[in-house]
Amino acid sequence: MEAVVDFIDANRARFVSELIEWVRIPSISSDPRCSEEVRRSAEHLAAEMRRLGAGRVEIWQTPGHPAVFAEWLGAPAKPTLLIYGHHDVQPVDPLGEWISPPFEPAERDGRLWGRGVVDDKGQVYIHAKAIESFIATAGRLPINVKVIVEGEEEIGSGNLEALLRSRAADLAADFVCVSDTAMFGRGIPSLCVGLRGLTYLEVFVEGPRGDLHSGSFGGGIQNPVHALAKMIAALHDDGGRVTVPGFYEDVLALRAEERAQIASLPFDEDQWLQSTGAPGLWGEHGYSTLERIWARPTLDCCGISGGFQGEGAKTIIPARARAKLSCRLVPNQEPGDIARKVAQYLERLAPPGVRVRVEALHGGRPYLAPTDHPVYELAKRAFTRAFGKETVFMREGGSIPFVRTIADTTGKPCLLMGFGQPDENSHAPNEWLDLDNYHLGIKSAAYLYDEMSRLSGMAGRGEESE
Amino acid sequence: MEAVVDFIDANRARFVSELIEWVRIPSISSDPRCSEEVRRSAEHLAAEMRRLGAGRVEIWQTPGHPAVFAEWLGAPAKPTLLIYGHHDVQPVDPLGEWISPPFEPAERDGRLWGRGVVDDKGQVYIHAKAIESFIATAGRLPINVKVIVEGEEEIGSGNLEALLRSRAADLAADFVCVSDTAMFGRGIPSLCVGLRGLTYLEVFVEGPRGDLHSGSFGGGIQNPVHALAKMIAALHDDGGRVTVPGFYEDVLALRAEERAQIASLPFDEDQWLQSTGAPGLWGEHGYSTLERIWARPTLDCCGISGGFQGEGAKTIIPARARAKLSCRLVPNQEPGDIARKVAQYLERLAPPGVRVRVEALHGGRPYLAPTDHPVYELAKRAFTRAFGKETVFMREGGSIPFVRTIADTTGKPCLLMGFGQPDENSHAPNEWLDLDNYHLGIKSAAYLYDEMSRLSGMAGRGEESE
Repeated sequence: MEAVVDFIDANRARFVSELIEWVRIPSISSDPRCSEEVRRSAEHLAAEMRRLGAGRVEIWQTPGHPAVFAEWLGAPAKPTLLIYGHHDVQPVDPLGEWISPPFEPAERDGRLWGRGVVDDKGQVYIHAKAIESFIATAGRLPINVKVIVEGEEEIGSGNLEALLRSRAADLAADFVCVSDTAMFGRGIPSLCVGLRGLTYLEVFVEGPRGDLHSGSFGGGIQNPVHALAKMIAALHDDGGRVTVPGFYEDVLALRAEERAQIASLPFDEDQWLQSTGAPGLWGEHGYSTLERIWARPTLDCCGISGGFQGEGAKTIIPARARAKLSCRLVPNQEPGDIARKVAQYLERLAPPGVRVRVEALHGGRPYLAPTDHPVYELAKRAFTRAFGKETVFMREGGSIPFVRTIADTTGKPCLLMGFGQPDENSHAPNEWLDLDNYHLGIKSAAYLYDEMSRLSGMAGRGEESE
Repeated sequence: MEAVVDFIDANRARFVSELIEWVRIPSISSDPRCSEEVRRSAEHLAAEMRRLGAGRVEIWQTPGHPAVFAEWLGAPAKPTLLIYGHHDVQPVDPLGEWISPPFEPAERDGRLWGRGVVDDKGQVYIHAKAIESFIATAGRLPINVKVIVEGEEEIGSGNLEALLRSRAADLAADFVCVSDTAMFGRGIPSLCVGLRGLTYLEVFVEGPRGDLHSGSFGGGIQNPVHALAKMIAALHDDGGRVTVPGFYEDVLALRAEERAQIASLPFDEDQWLQSTGAPGLWGEHGYSTLERIWARPTLDCCGISGGFQGEGAKTIIPARARAKLSCRLVPNQEPGDIARKVAQYLERLAPPGVRVRVEALHGGRPYLAPTDHPVYELAKRAFTRAFGKETVFMREGGSIPFVRTIADTTGKPCLLMGFGQPDENSHAPNEWLDLDNYHLGIKSAAYLYDEMSRLSGMAGRGEESE
């Protein structure tokens, strides 16, 4: 391992500049105008995997954006690790708020700034560079590694489940590692053991055929913006609880020991609040902030629009208004069930004088890790070796549909080993990657492969016959 | 008059094509990028006034957009009529909903389509062409005429009051005529005897510093869109009444005879509703639709925006949200007072966890005409001569700040003689002018000048010494 670690130290700057080249490609999966760029991003990564000596590299087409698959199977009787990441990125608007352009990555203050630097291209490259460091020094990896990097994570991984099923044999592994989450705090190595799920809806409210003069018509008909505001306002009570009937029905309550473990973390609530810039905390009564963002379901309006939005004053009753809603889900809520409940409730809330339509866009299921499996202790050890600090268990409020999907389809434990920061702006302007973390992340991945090589592989553990 | 009317008939097509030339100029007063076009619009009109032989034509600069003044004072001892109009127009978005481009006026189905064809360039040209018809046939007008056409009506006529005061001598007249309203129905000549006032506000709600990931942060802080929705939802009760404290305090209640006169009009509520395209009527309980849109105050959200509005799904908690609000006012509500009351209430409604700021943009006072003055009977007669139908009194839900301002500063009766249609889309895409009405409007204006010439002028009535 010494040679591997020395190689990682010696190539620190090059590993950054190679990441920059990939981040330059604007692989925004939600924007139809970028679909060619998403394809180019997949090809760029495939070329890098070939350069790292993978025994097999393939671009897997889907009905949407392509995924990249690569494998190094040179360690017979050793375990096989399947690494997941994604190469698509979030949209960039409002573009004017970026300090440097999102697709011209810039180094400032020990950070790399740009769209996708940490979510998730930087974290995919942490593994790529750990692999390169073994190949360059030892000529081989200590375990078998498979990598799948999809192109639709930011739009809900809609084609991933079918891909996993049709490629089940190619993807067979003993363990799964996902690097797409954030660490609990600066320099605190963290394994994420829970993710929230997601269901995304859009609600459309229609009134008059076109925008009407608010003088000539005001007072005669319902205003679609008022109707939508009434509906959104009715979705939470004053205690911050979602009022959708049945919303909490399937929620797995936090156990006393989970609440105690969460309460034991060195969480600085004031600093967290300051990092958001909001004037105060707010949310469901009866739960701490960490519990609310990790283990309680939410409903948030991600966007609203209707009527005149330009400069100055236009005196109209808007013809229509619309809102986008995301619900974050916890075990055992189901995205389809919650989408249906929210849609039905919105339709019931619609006041007279407007037409309401709700569309469910996509969803993903929540995840809770089987933390009693020995691989979690092993991963903690690897992480602690790289960072020189105790590794903690945490959860993450975001959603990675893949995790629950692969957990359900393979039945294998999934390690969520993330290197982001809580305030990394991963879905906002000015996304950034801590370059120290990138460096130590590459070491952590190397130590993980090393630790894992002490276990036996699939055949060795005889799982095939179980 | 026969020669005048023949001339109007003979020049029907030319009068339309000359209007088209003026409408081509995109004089959108609310858009700073159009200020040069507003100036060009003023110059175009001034050139037309000079062509019609006005004794004096001037462009009056203001701190904002310029106004055009013209006068024909060749009828000693006859009354002086001051005609008001505006040459600025509403914005055009959403541009995609226009069937033909807003500034390339097109004739279809007996209508002229384009921004400003009826609000208010077409109505200004109704007078210009009536003037031309007298000059071309009789060589002079039967009364004295002054015309003022301002460039800021669609943004609240903010500089008009100062202009009226500083130009009081230039604008002195016996009567005022405003042609900027709609007729009660197709082919029903109508004098408008009441206008609602206006106060326009914008409310800004701010939460986190930038947009945040709705997974990582959802449940921890207040969502500015939810906060704004709660505030807007609380502005009306279920009976359609505005809940702002003191909102109705100064409202002049409708008298029984006013309610009876309004109820006597041939109002087809179903057809009115169909013209809007809305699925149902809605508004303050206890009042008929005409009462609600003419004589009761309202509060309407003209636009709302916040967070992600593009295609697809972006999972964020928006940093901010905003809404534009217009209140339509009735006598004796005051715009400043209502703006203050709405702003204070909005600030009080703000839920914890957000910052709220309210800006009052502009306002205009409501107007009720002194219908017992003999000039109203005279105007009815002129109108009836042109259309061959009985003229009715009506009100208008919209606002023309000029009317109340000149009524207060001159103390003269103001004739609101409008030629628009209730469903003319004057503040929406696909604004149109009925070309029959344009033609009969020119005749009505000519008959009005003719009727008025039977009265004596200022000096003759000795008002100066009263």
